[in-house]
Amino acid sequence: MTDTSSRLVQSLVENARIGYSLEQDFYVSDAVFKEDMARIISRKWIVAGHVSRIPNKGDYFLFKIGSEQIIVIRENDQSVRAFFNVCRHRGSTICSAESGNAPRLVCPYHAWTFGLDGQLLAARLMPEDFNKAENSLIACHVRVFHGLVFINMSQDAPDDFDATFGDMGPILAYQGIDTARIAYAGSYPTTANWKLVVENFFECYHCVPSHPEFCSMHAPETLVAVGAGPSSGPADAIANFAPKVKAWEDKAAALGRPIGSLDDAPESSHLRLLMQRMNKEGWSSETQDGTAPAPLMGNRTAPDGGRMHLSFSPFSQIVADDHFAILFQFTPRSALATDVEMIWLVNGKATEAEVDIDKMTWGYHATTTQDKVITENNQAGIMSTRYQPGRYSDQEGSVMKFQKWYLQHMAAPKAA
Amino acid sequence: MTDTSSRLVQSLVENARIGYSLEQDFYVSDAVFKEDMARIISRKWIVAGHVSRIPNKGDYFLFKIGSEQIIVIRENDQSVRAFFNVCRHRGSTICSAESGNAPRLVCPYHAWTFGLDGQLLAARLMPEDFNKAENSLIACHVRVFHGLVFINMSQDAPDDFDATFGDMGPILAYQGIDTARIAYAGSYPTTANWKLVVENFFECYHCVPSHPEFCSMHAPETLVAVGAGPSSGPADAIANFAPKVKAWEDKAAALGRPIGSLDDAPESSHLRLLMQRMNKEGWSSETQDGTAPAPLMGNRTAPDGGRMHLSFSPFSQIVADDHFAILFQFTPRSALATDVEMIWLVNGKATEAEVDIDKMTWGYHATTTQDKVITENNQAGIMSTRYQPGRYSDQEGSVMKFQKWYLQHMAAPKAA
Amino acid sequence: MTDTSSRLVQSLVENARIGYSLEQDFYVSDAVFKEDMARIISRKWIVAGHVSRIPNKGDYFLFKIGSEQIIVIRENDQSVRAFFNVCRHRGSTICSAESGNAPRLVCPYHAWTFGLDGQLLAARLMPEDFNKAENSLIACHVRVFHGLVFINMSQDAPDDFDATFGDMGPILAYQGIDTARIAYAGSYPTTANWKLVVENFFECYHCVPSHPEFCSMHAPETLVAVGAGPSSGPADAIANFAPKVKAWEDKAAALGRPIGSLDDAPESSHLRLLMQRMNKEGWSSETQDGTAPAPLMGNRTAPDGGRMHLSFSPFSQIVADDHFAILFQFTPRSALATDVEMIWLVNGKATEAEVDIDKMTWGYHATTTQDKVITENNQAGIMSTRYQPGRYSDQEGSVMKFQKWYLQHMAAPKAA
Repeated sequence: MTDTSSRLVQSLVENARIGYSLEQDFYVSDAVFKEDMARIISRKWIVAGHVSRIPNKGDYFLFKIGSEQIIVIRENDQSVRAFFNVCRHRGSTICSAESGNAPRLVCPYHAWTFGLDGQLLAARLMPEDFNKAENSLIACHVRVFHGLVFINMSQDAPDDFDATFGDMGPILAYQGIDTARIAYAGSYPTTANWKLVVENFFECYHCVPSHPEFCSMHAPETLVAVGAGPSSGPADAIANFAPKVKAWEDKAAALGRPIGSLDDAPESSHLRLLMQRMNKEGWSSETQDGTAPAPLMGNRTAPDGGRMHLSFSPFSQIVADDHFAILFQFTPRSALATDVEMIWLVNGKATEAEVDIDKMTWGYHATTTQDKVITENNQAGIMSTRYQPGRYSDQEGSVMKFQKWYLQHMAAPKAA
Repeated sequence: MTDTSSRLVQSLVENARIGYSLEQDFYVSDAVFKEDMARIISRKWIVAGHVSRIPNKGDYFLFKIGSEQIIVIRENDQSVRAFFNVCRHRGSTICSAESGNAPRLVCPYHAWTFGLDGQLLAARLMPEDFNKAENSLIACHVRVFHGLVFINMSQDAPDDFDATFGDMGPILAYQGIDTARIAYAGSYPTTANWKLVVENFFECYHCVPSHPEFCSMHAPETLVAVGAGPSSGPADAIANFAPKVKAWEDKAAALGRPIGSLDDAPESSHLRLLMQRMNKEGWSSETQDGTAPAPLMGNRTAPDGGRMHLSFSPFSQIVADDHFAILFQFTPRSALATDVEMIWLVNGKATEAEVDIDKMTWGYHATTTQDKVITENNQAGIMSTRYQPGRYSDQEGSVMKFQKWYLQHMAAPKAA
Repeated sequence: MTDTSSRLVQSLVENARIGYSLEQDFYVSDAVFKEDMARIISRKWIVAGHVSRIPNKGDYFLFKIGSEQIIVIRENDQSVRAFFNVCRHRGSTICSAESGNAPRLVCPYHAWTFGLDGQLLAARLMPEDFNKAENSLIACHVRVFHGLVFINMSQDAPDDFDATFGDMGPILAYQGIDTARIAYAGSYPTTANWKLVVENFFECYHCVPSHPEFCSMHAPETLVAVGAGPSSGPADAIANFAPKVKAWEDKAAALGRPIGSLDDAPESSHLRLLMQRMNKEGWSSETQDGTAPAPLMGNRTAPDGGRMHLSFSPFSQIVADDHFAILFQFTPRSALATDVEMIWLVNGKATEAEVDIDKMTWGYHATTTQDKVITENNQAGIMSTRYQPGRYSDQEGSVMKFQKWYLQHMAAPKAA
């Protein structure tokens, strides 16, 4: 089975045409999805959630990805742990609620009891030669970084976290992601392959036709040049736009903002992106009327007028301005299903009265609702025998980069 | 994959036993359905709908078959076009409503804009070497014939339309299918393989046990002899019935009706059938009490008392008498799902007040509702390991002919 | 296809590790389920229901297992028949209601008419060389034994019924299963592989964590020693418990109860189990307060205070005490779906007023509802790539025995 799907992927990768969308099989095949899981999804650092969901010892939440369930649990003040939600006895899930508190991880089936460090503490009536030490819960790599819980399901040593993400620390600190609180969360489950969800997010070529609310919050030249990241637009548009960004950067830097961008190459491990620029003129926040829906976030003493788009990987994104940040999670579930979750973060000290949730969510709730429809229609069309890879526009630069990154991962020799 | 399914089909075809129903795999296997699509469904002229659905420029409707969606659209007074509903850019569906009006075909995703002739008119921000002329919508063969829109999804040159169907023109003209209007439409989606739906329609052996309403509208000897087409019954019943038909034909011909029948051989491309005969004595129309539910159709100056059953192919059928016609569409969707649609047509000049829809639909709405149940039960039984091909009766002649036609298509060398 | 699944099973069986739960594929794979059907499920005597459902000639009920439907029908006072629900003509199901009465088995499609002995009595308009005698309904082996209808779908000669089950007759007679009536029936369809359902039933290691109602009706030492059958607990617990059972047996035998136990070896055909012991002290029946919910069953003249657990096979179980008996049916439907049905039986002469259904069903309705959740969680955890076979406790002896029995069946050469 594995050989069959490996061979299929190898043939598809060899025939992929740069500058064009992928062949149908990449978007519909169960065999390709299996390889996506093995080669990419299971080997990347992916944001599972915000640490404020588990403030107290024993607090946990479940993160479901592919056929896996990961328990993310607070061990103590210093430590968060992650485990596969599989009892070492007969395989039952241990947690079934989406979130909760468990002083110990007790399997509800036969009461095998694990500590918050995953160690098996108690198992009744086992044979004499049974070794508890060999029956800990299977750990999942986990790292809390500026309030974000990253998991990595790799069976090998994963990419070094700090070497991969360390340089993103200052901007996350400035934005106060660590001390933020969740003001609102929304779910937009999408009946489409995860690559279509990512490709949709990585280009703004569709913004004008598809997203009136989104476009009303941004200047047209911004959308063309950098609507979906640092090099998502045509080269001339980016060049024209650059001086304006520079002028804003100077002011923002003076207010203490760490400026600059990131634009990882397709050869990189996580394809990180960071684009920082000014919000639309006259707009202090991405809302319908441009007014702020919440207090300033993070280390700001005054608004700097900026807006950032940050990708940790194709699966985990942040969009933020002076007053709120949104964490986007694109979580593959099967070849034709992707969970899309949005978490709106505000200053952790902001009271409920200080946050206007309707105002804050107006733009991106509409936009993501539209993206769900768009992406599902994209999937529906790709089901046709007459779908064939189409040419990318100059405003789909980040999609092309994503595809190169994807194809390189799929072409690489498979881990044992 | 293709080789595997081809080999499976080859082995099944070689083992098929004439005079018996098909082996289980033909009715349940995804691999066989894939071959059905490639060898038959994608290569036949199939009625997609009545042209009155799209009277004005830009009017369109969608026809969904297998995993395909076809846009059927009015280009101008002289021309109807059909396109695969797949944008040439990244594959999104272009139309998502079941029907509507579009002055141009604008993809809602990135606004690539196509003319009603399928030509790409506008695509923003494309690379300089991008050639619009090479990016037209993929056309589907389409032909309007006496008001019926036929599509053919073949990638090769399809069977010549006029050579195939031209001789059916006179009876369609006489019936006024061209100028008819849709009085009612009904959907009977059936959880069964398309071949079971067709086999059900192609025999009247089940009429007495299953269809009290239908039987009440027909003389028993008619049902036995020609209940499901020109040679569907036993030879002696047909012979006994022939003189009565002849007597009616003489009268009908005198009124201007083109008489005669068609009964294509299994070697034919479309297995066309045409049976014309008199309605039940005392019945001027196929209704509960035999009275007419609508004005005369077509070129008639007086009722001729006839009733016809016409098959363009196993997928597209017409049943009609002096006062109304029904278009039956059997549209395969997957191995175990078939769309069954009925469209009741009346004289295009008939006012709403002149058409009694309840009276007109009474018989065939009941009959097709029963056929849905019957056919789904047939499918359920065939799922058993103990199902085995069973012997046909003398009243299932058209089913045997259909099977020969089907097996010959499946045995033929596959197009490149 | 068969070869592929046979090879998969062979490899899995060879790698199975005694003392540990099975590999993932055994619980999730369609290919393994297909082999389970062919090698085990289709070849065992399985209880389809209680004969009181079909008291009169022509009464029938359907038993659905895998993709099969079996018609169990009363032919006459002496005889019950079972047939595959597949017409010999074109394969339609003949009965579609879950139960009913049919003086003859008439296919609703084309009215082929079969006698209650399965003989084809009438088929209209068949070719002259058609042989009715060769077109009987396909019979399914069936045997009524003490009021229980056993079916066996084997295409070969099945295991001899009397040699297999004859020695269970006396206890069934004593319990009055034959003359019992159905007081209540409940359905607990479970989204899990059938082996997880059986494994759950075959151990009481989970009773304390999962089943408060069940545990309240039993002494703790009983549950540990024999909670799920004669050798389900640790050897020392069984040894300690034995004298108490012996003391009860002496009293029960004096009252006429056939005593003793059965504990078939893994090499046996049906893995039969029988454990008889005393009910909890002070409890005259398995109810919340220990009082009887119904009159004495069977041949008893006085309560003997006993409780039995009897397995005809992993698919068919009885739990009974002085006042009621429960028939458990575990019926595989697909790799991930199992029907779980419970039928509560009481003395056939008990009036409705004499039976307190709420009291009688309180314990096992709760327990089986819990088992459904537990087993579905077990299945969910096993879907993970990180599931691995886990070590059994000393209280899972019957599960280990079941697995040995299962693996031996899967390893045996396949019937032609």
